[in-house]
Amino acid sequence: MTQKILEVVQTTILKEKPDPSTLEFGKHFSDHMFMMDYTSEEGWHQPRVVPYQSLTLEPAAMVFHYGQTVFEGLKAYRSSNGDIRLFRPEENFKRLNQSCDRLSIPKVNEEAMLEYLKEFVKLDKDWIPKEKGMSLYIRPFIISTEATLDVSPSRAYTLMIILSPVGSFYKGGIDPVSIFVENEYTRAAPGGTGNAKTAGNYSGAYKAQERASSHKKDQVLWLDGVEKKYVEEVGSMNVFFKINDEIHTPALNGSILEGITRKSVIELLESEGMSVCERSISIDEVIAANENGSLQEMFGTGTAAVISPVGRLEYKGRDYEINNGKMGETASWLHETLVGIQTGALDDPFGWSIEVNG
Amino acid sequence: MTQKILEVVQTTILKEKPDPSTLEFGKHFSDHMFMMDYTSEEGWHQPRVVPYQSLTLEPAAMVFHYGQTVFEGLKAYRSSNGDIRLFRPEENFKRLNQSCDRLSIPKVNEEAMLEYLKEFVKLDKDWIPKEKGMSLYIRPFIISTEATLDVSPSRAYTLMIILSPVGSFYKGGIDPVSIFVENEYTRAAPGGTGNAKTAGNYSGAYKAQERASSHKKDQVLWLDGVEKKYVEEVGSMNVFFKINDEIHTPALNGSILEGITRKSVIELLESEGMSVCERSISIDEVIAANENGSLQEMFGTGTAAVISPVGRLEYKGRDYEINNGKMGETASWLHETLVGIQTGALDDPFGWSIEVNG
Repeated sequence: MTQKILEVVQTTILKEKPDPSTLEFGKHFSDHMFMMDYTSEEGWHQPRVVPYQSLTLEPAAMVFHYGQTVFEGLKAYRSSNGDIRLFRPEENFKRLNQSCDRLSIPKVNEEAMLEYLKEFVKLDKDWIPKEKGMSLYIRPFIISTEATLDVSPSRAYTLMIILSPVGSFYKGGIDPVSIFVENEYTRAAPGGTGNAKTAGNYSGAYKAQERASSHKKDQVLWLDGVEKKYVEEVGSMNVFFKINDEIHTPALNGSILEGITRKSVIELLESEGMSVCERSISIDEVIAANENGSLQEMFGTGTAAVISPVGRLEYKGRDYEINNGKMGETASWLHETLVGIQTGALDDPFGWSIEVNG
Repeated sequence: MTQKILEVVQTTILKEKPDPSTLEFGKHFSDHMFMMDYTSEEGWHQPRVVPYQSLTLEPAAMVFHYGQTVFEGLKAYRSSNGDIRLFRPEENFKRLNQSCDRLSIPKVNEEAMLEYLKEFVKLDKDWIPKEKGMSLYIRPFIISTEATLDVSPSRAYTLMIILSPVGSFYKGGIDPVSIFVENEYTRAAPGGTGNAKTAGNYSGAYKAQERASSHKKDQVLWLDGVEKKYVEEVGSMNVFFKINDEIHTPALNGSILEGITRKSVIELLESEGMSVCERSISIDEVIAANENGSLQEMFGTGTAAVISPVGRLEYKGRDYEINNGKMGETASWLHETLVGIQTGALDDPFGWSIEVNG
C-alpha cells in the first residue's frame, strides 16, 4: 500500500527561472522532482520529493528494451488572486491506473498520489508563471527499471513527477490549425494500446507527422486502424464536430484516448442543455458535411491547447477549408469557459478546479 | 558519417563469470559495452567500447515519455574448434535501419557497425560459453536521449550493444510449446509498428501473455489486427505450418516482424527443393487442417529458440493437439541444420556463419 508520509529533501541551490516571453514547451524543469519506487517485495514505497536530478539506470533496464511505461499530463494554474489551482487531477491518476493496467504495471494509490502532488506543487509554487495564459505543466510517469532482457513484466518500477513552466499555447490569438488526413499509418487498433498513455503510441506517430508537415499541415487526423474510414483523433487531441447545430465526437472505442478535456467539453455542453452525440464518424461524412455547408465547426481538445479549432483539412490530395478557416462560436465559448474555470476567473459549478493552498 | 575508428577503454576489474548450469536469460552482462552517440550537429559519432556501466539520463529524456527506441538480437557461438561465429549479423543491422526508419531515428552505417561488433565480441570473447547449446546473446539498441517533453523526434540518441551469456533454450531436449490463440488483444495492425523491433510492441503484448499463462499455455498465437482471422506470429517468433507435405508461413504484410530465422528457414527449405508458400493463413484453416489430419507440423522460428515446435493449441475454449504433441521431422531437421551452421559443426554453403578471428 502506498504510504501517506512524504519525505522532502530540499535543494540547496535554486535554479534561475526562464524568461516567460521565450519559454519553449517542456524544456525547463523546476527545482524538485517527485519519486516513488516499486519492487515486488515492498510494493510502491518511499514517496519523496528530491532536487531535480539525473537518473542512473543499467543499460539492461527494461524500459529501454520493452517499453513498459505510462505517463500523464496536467497543469497547475495561478489565479488572479494568487491561488494555485489544479484541473481535475483525480481524473489523471484514474487514467494513469487505467494505462498501468494495459501495460501490466502495478497500480498506484490515486488518493495518496493526489496528496503528494499537491504537496510537491506547493513546494515549487514559484515555478507557476503568473502571466496570462501560462501555467506549470505536470508530467507524472512510470518506467520499468529491472535489468533483464527477459520479455516479461518488470519487477521494479520508478514513478516520477517533473514540473515544467509552459507559455501560452496561442501566441497572439488562437490560430486554427490545418490537418492532414492520414490513411496509411495507423495510430492504434482495437485490442492495442491506443487508449493507454504509453510511450510507444507517440513515437509510432512521428512518421505520419512528418508526412503532414511535408504537406504543410500542422497535424495529423487519425483514422481507425481497421477500415481507415472513421475519424479517431487529431494529433494527440480528441476531436469534435459541429454539424447542423449539433455536436458530435467519435465514441470511445478502445483505440481512442479518453481525454479529460474531451470529457469536460461533453459535460460542459450538456450542462448548457446541448447534447453531444458520441458515435462513429466517417471521414466521408465530414467531407460531405463540409461540402454541403452543414459542417459549422471542427476542433481538437487536449490539455496543451485546451481547444484547438481546425481551419483546413487535406484528404486524398484535396484541400478543404472549414468554417472559412476561422474559429467558431462553440469552440470560442468552450475555450473561454474552460480556461476561466481552470484559472479561477469563472465560477466552477462542477468542482473541477481544485485549490492548492500555497 | 560513422567513423571507422573504434576507441577502446578496457575495464580494470574483470567480473566473475556466472555458472553456466544456472544461467538465466538476459541477467548477466559481459565486462564491456559498445556505445555511440548521435547529435543533429555531429551525426553518429564516437564509437567506443567502455566498461559495462550505468547510464545517466535526465528524467525528461524522450525515451521515457515517447518511446523512440529500436533494438536487435543475435548470438555469437563458439565452434568446437574454438572459432567465434556470428549468424548473418549483416541482416540484423539491415533490419535495425528498417526499424530506425519507422521510428524516425537516424540510420547507422551498417558495414561500420558490423566491424565494431566484431571488434567488441573479440574483446569479450571469454564470455562466449563453450558448453553445447550455449551462446553469447548480443543486444544492439538505440534510445532517444534529448531532454524535452515536446512530442517530436529527438535530436540526440545513444546506440549501445550489450552482451549476455545465455544457456540452452531447451534444457533436457526440445519440448513442444502450447499456445493460446488470442482474439481480443492486438499485437500490430497495418500501418502500425509491427514490423519494427521497437520497445512498445513488446510491453503491449504482456496482457495477452498473462491470459495465455492463466490458460496454462506457454505462448500467444497472434491474429491479424483487422479481422482477427489470420495467423501472424507466435509469441515473439514467426510461425510455420506443414500441411500435406508443403510448408506454409504467413506472408510479410507490414505487421509481421521480418525474422532472420524465418528468412533462413525459407532459404534452407528451398535449397533442398522444397517450396515455402508465403500467404495469408486463417486460424480456421489451421484448425480444420488439424481436424482432418492434414496439419503435420507447426513451429515457431526465432533467434532465442531457433525452432520451437508447437504441440498444443487453444482456440475459443477448445484444446487441440498437434502432431500428437511431438516435434515433427521438418522442425527437427531445420533445428539441427541451423544450429549446425551457426556453431560451425555443419558445412555452410550459404556463407551465413561469419567467423570472427579471436
